[in-house]
Amino acid sequence: MIITLKNQKDIEQRESLIDWIKDLGLDVHISEGVGTTILGLIGDTSKVDIDLIRSLDIVDSVNRIQEPFKNANRKFHPADSIIDVSGVKFGGDNFQFIAGPCSVESEKQVVSIAEEVKKAGATLLRGGAFKPRTSPYAFQGLGVEGLKYLKKAREVTGLPIVSEIMSADFISDFEDVDLIQVGARNMQNFELLKELGKINKPILLKRGLANTIEEWLMSAEYIMSEGNENIILCERGIRTFEPYTRNTLDLSAVPILKEKTHLPVIVDPSHATGINRLVRPMSRAAVASGADGLLIEVHNDPQHALCDGAQSLKPEQFAEVVVDCKKILEVIR
Amino acid sequence: MIITLKNQKDIEQRESLIDWIKDLGLDVHISEGVGTTILGLIGDTSKVDIDLIRSLDIVDSVNRIQEPFKNANRKFHPADSIIDVSGVKFGGDNFQFIAGPCSVESEKQVVSIAEEVKKAGATLLRGGAFKPRTSPYAFQGLGVEGLKYLKKAREVTGLPIVSEIMSADFISDFEDVDLIQVGARNMQNFELLKELGKINKPILLKRGLANTIEEWLMSAEYIMSEGNENIILCERGIRTFEPYTRNTLDLSAVPILKEKTHLPVIVDPSHATGINRLVRPMSRAAVASGADGLLIEVHNDPQHALCDGAQSLKPEQFAEVVVDCKKILEVIR
Amino acid sequence: MIITLKNQKDIEQRESLIDWIKDLGLDVHISEGVGTTILGLIGDTSKVDIDLIRSLDIVDSVNRIQEPFKNANRKFHPADSIIDVSGVKFGGDNFQFIAGPCSVESEKQVVSIAEEVKKAGATLLRGGAFKPRTSPYAFQGLGVEGLKYLKKAREVTGLPIVSEIMSADFISDFEDVDLIQVGARNMQNFELLKELGKINKPILLKRGLANTIEEWLMSAEYIMSEGNENIILCERGIRTFEPYTRNTLDLSAVPILKEKTHLPVIVDPSHATGINRLVRPMSRAAVASGADGLLIEVHNDPQHALCDGAQSLKPEQFAEVVVDCKKILEVIR
Amino acid sequence: MIITLKNQKDIEQRESLIDWIKDLGLDVHISEGVGTTILGLIGDTSKVDIDLIRSLDIVDSVNRIQEPFKNANRKFHPADSIIDVSGVKFGGDNFQFIAGPCSVESEKQVVSIAEEVKKAGATLLRGGAFKPRTSPYAFQGLGVEGLKYLKKAREVTGLPIVSEIMSADFISDFEDVDLIQVGARNMQNFELLKELGKINKPILLKRGLANTIEEWLMSAEYIMSEGNENIILCERGIRTFEPYTRNTLDLSAVPILKEKTHLPVIVDPSHATGINRLVRPMSRAAVASGADGLLIEVHNDPQHALCDGAQSLKPEQFAEVVVDCKKILEVIR
Repeated sequence: MIITLKNQKDIEQRESLIDWIKDLGLDVHISEGVGTTILGLIGDTSKVDIDLIRSLDIVDSVNRIQEPFKNANRKFHPADSIIDVSGVKFGGDNFQFIAGPCSVESEKQVVSIAEEVKKAGATLLRGGAFKPRTSPYAFQGLGVEGLKYLKKAREVTGLPIVSEIMSADFISDFEDVDLIQVGARNMQNFELLKELGKINKPILLKRGLANTIEEWLMSAEYIMSEGNENIILCERGIRTFEPYTRNTLDLSAVPILKEKTHLPVIVDPSHATGINRLVRPMSRAAVASGADGLLIEVHNDPQHALCDGAQSLKPEQFAEVVVDCKKILEVIR
Repeated sequence: MIITLKNQKDIEQRESLIDWIKDLGLDVHISEGVGTTILGLIGDTSKVDIDLIRSLDIVDSVNRIQEPFKNANRKFHPADSIIDVSGVKFGGDNFQFIAGPCSVESEKQVVSIAEEVKKAGATLLRGGAFKPRTSPYAFQGLGVEGLKYLKKAREVTGLPIVSEIMSADFISDFEDVDLIQVGARNMQNFELLKELGKINKPILLKRGLANTIEEWLMSAEYIMSEGNENIILCERGIRTFEPYTRNTLDLSAVPILKEKTHLPVIVDPSHATGINRLVRPMSRAAVASGADGLLIEVHNDPQHALCDGAQSLKPEQFAEVVVDCKKILEVIR
Repeated sequence: MIITLKNQKDIEQRESLIDWIKDLGLDVHISEGVGTTILGLIGDTSKVDIDLIRSLDIVDSVNRIQEPFKNANRKFHPADSIIDVSGVKFGGDNFQFIAGPCSVESEKQVVSIAEEVKKAGATLLRGGAFKPRTSPYAFQGLGVEGLKYLKKAREVTGLPIVSEIMSADFISDFEDVDLIQVGARNMQNFELLKELGKINKPILLKRGLANTIEEWLMSAEYIMSEGNENIILCERGIRTFEPYTRNTLDLSAVPILKEKTHLPVIVDPSHATGINRLVRPMSRAAVASGADGLLIEVHNDPQHALCDGAQSLKPEQFAEVVVDCKKILEVIR
Repeated sequence: MIITLKNQKDIEQRESLIDWIKDLGLDVHISEGVGTTILGLIGDTSKVDIDLIRSLDIVDSVNRIQEPFKNANRKFHPADSIIDVSGVKFGGDNFQFIAGPCSVESEKQVVSIAEEVKKAGATLLRGGAFKPRTSPYAFQGLGVEGLKYLKKAREVTGLPIVSEIMSADFISDFEDVDLIQVGARNMQNFELLKELGKINKPILLKRGLANTIEEWLMSAEYIMSEGNENIILCERGIRTFEPYTRNTLDLSAVPILKEKTHLPVIVDPSHATGINRLVRPMSRAAVASGADGLLIEVHNDPQHALCDGAQSLKPEQFAEVVVDCKKILEVIR
């Protein structure tokens, strides 16, 4: 970490800063220039609070040399992490297709979709039981009942199941869910992250709507620092000024993450774009950018289901996406 | 609500949509144009899931006439709400100054700052006991111990206290806190909002980093729909591409909110800008824009306290801000 | 176009609005609902100033049914436009690789790079002669001299050349340039667009840093409405809050554009990301998303050239990108 | 300028970088740390191309100590610049109100508005003759004819006039305009800026829609580096994700600019918000934040003028704004 001090002579504050740094167990290399003083911090700076230093009156700027994340950092763990979700592996040479409905509506619905997506190539089943909704008046999901239907669909198809958790209070309800999703709105719900760090289940951590890649990795670090290292990251679009798509899918995040971290990275083109016609090209692009998997909304009865629409694929459309993606995988690997 | 249908002839889907709308207890006014059909929904549309309708294949666009928030809506509650925080009133003709340190460090620190900010004109004391930090390795606050010191400072000065809650699990610890803050990162922690809706304490609801004003009011609606109508909104800056300030303080949100809702609106210039030299001009501007109060970071010993800096004012600087703001209040009211 | 009026009784303003619409040669279909009135505009609304109507006191909202762009609109021109750049075709089943240095430095440099990129698979040569620089103190390019070197390189290799124009005053200097680039900062330089509409050369129109897709198409429309329909669009990243990449490459724009317009769309992964290690995965992703070509920075002597670096590929790296992309093209077409 | 090198041993590239820096007339202070090397550049670094250095493979990060703008920098010109617009002064203790219609429609209209805004307190008259419009089909302004009407209004009222220029080709038409406006879309039209730097007229430089404060000052620097130092900056809102206002007015930019530059800063609340009801509170807030003036849209016949509406004030509303702002000025100065 490089701290550039302002051009001034407040020796007292400067000495107080240097002492404080040394108290953290770090060495300080002082370099006096013309009109500026630079402090180089030597040692493990991941515990140093960069915001705190940046806020000091005598500090001009602070520059990390080391990244603030440790457990998630590829530098300290060069090999890809392989995350095992009830036998289905993410990371390394594996590629997985997670598919299913936005909301679990009934046992019949979810079992039938599960059978169809399995046939089309899905390796995991997704389905929302607890739904984060902007409005308190909107349908909030079937809750625990919905999880029961998902488990039934797993029993029938053998597909491991993925569903979103919205509070640490529900952890016991998710005991038998194979992969627990943390949604975009909860990416910085630190209390939830800490509790998920104490269990031994794989976590699917979606990127927050307006969070940087570094903040996202720090949220993974929250879970990992408590002991749970089974994390899969999911890019799902960020908020920009462009209105034609619901969010802007940031595919550059995929190769950046592959450099910075050893954790697997998957992409959700359905939520990112909000438009079903874009799911196929953006799925192809996600694979080509180096993603380890896809999370795709699929519904089997768009004629009568109201939650279908612009963002859900029909099973036969999903099957085409799977075929495309497998061919692209062969090309780039 | 106005639904514009695409220029197509899928009568089955269209009839299915109209039936579904009528099942919600609404009337539908159908208007056939050349190349387009418009449905006007008549009745209480606040329970209609706009995203769901927007996602239908046959729908071109959906336009709300009514806003989706009801309890927070000024249309149904034209008079300003007055929120009473242990005798200190927000809204209407009242204006309040909330001041105090970013983090509670010790009893001595917080009592001494409380005495100084009270003398300078503060009417409430703020202090962070549970701190939401991007890094798991950063100081997470003194927790329940910190709340104890705040209560001590209240005992000494008589100032009601404000502190941030990070999970519904801590609600019992906040029973004796006068005003409970929901931070930017938890603005859409819907489980927390629902639980805060069931208690009878005033809530200070900060705007999320990248949330629209409408989403913010919907989060207020979550709390209100559970029964707790004691909400104060706090603008604290949004995320943009500009790096000179930490966030971009959106003061236009103040007059917009005064139109849309009857709830009081305060402004936090300290977190929004991250620069103490900007707190005075932006406090003045916040008052001039019509805010009902200010939330300002004040520390009394910047020389030795490391958490002071660019964003905290000294008590004497805060006193100047109070004087300025009171003069501007006289001009505009 | 659907105009929703506010719930009010200002008959005079309403009649004045309806008269004004009829004066534009449009029919108005009036639909009275409970608490609202809707006007449906029938006819060619592309000339209606939507901002003007939106700003009227009596108007609640305005909704386009027709898109505001006409010449660029795929609805009125269903087949892909094929743009011929001195014999090299863009659009339809064609795919082109534009490669070359950021800045033209010398004749020797640009000729040598041209020979190498041609061998690696490039079908056009790019090179900056006039450079838009944030700072007036930075190197502004070789200007007309640079164009001369590009022409020399074309003579040697046969590759058509692409270079950026920064003002209509230079149009005569670009007479012999095969494809004239309008950079991001000039996307809404309407005077330049109008002048380029009067000539008969292909234009490479880059997306503005913070412009919507609709604004971008309206800029194409400026050129086309003056008579020049030879336009190729180039996505080059938009400005967001994410600092790890220079800009955020918006690949969803590719399939959206393929729906909305018949014009070819290419992608510039070099400027978008600013990081050479990301050029290969993002080139693959661009092809997979459906792009019609790539614009890639290539330099042949990174050891000694200072303008090389994070964003330029070496010719051998570029050759690998070409191979990858051709394989992906086979898969998706 | 501080350059942090990556932890690597490419001595050749490092020596080549150091030689290149020395060739620019700068001294280099080398500081070797554990795992990193830091270069401190000593001398006038405003001519150093920071992007170029940042793009080098061996460079980890570059940090400016000096700002890249020189002529505009308050460090080298501590006193406020006073810009004289035909006798009306901006900067220092002066405060000016610029008012008038969005578009010049006729001589009668603009003369009549000019008389009314003068009575209400305006000190300059604005009016659009050349209008930058997203659509080529929208009204593009009266052009030179519009300038003639503005001059007539100046003759009648004595108010200096302000109007927007869209290309250097029109500079001779603006010879007799008192203050030449560069609009947001042309803030980085560098060819236009250079030409405006060669004349001796005051320039009103609006901030680009998605430009940082530093980029804005660099655009001022373009004009100043050619010799014209008569620049007034105008904040007019930036593009964010918030849809309730047209743009987000960034008032924090005002005190930041007052620190960074000696140039006057005014605010345009009309375009920023796009809502006339917000013009009064945001004008107050702009004054309170420390602005040197306001640019406000005023129209005198909103009943019949279609270009009036959400964003224009009536003259009597403008008069109230002037009264408010003068009172706030007394308080804060």
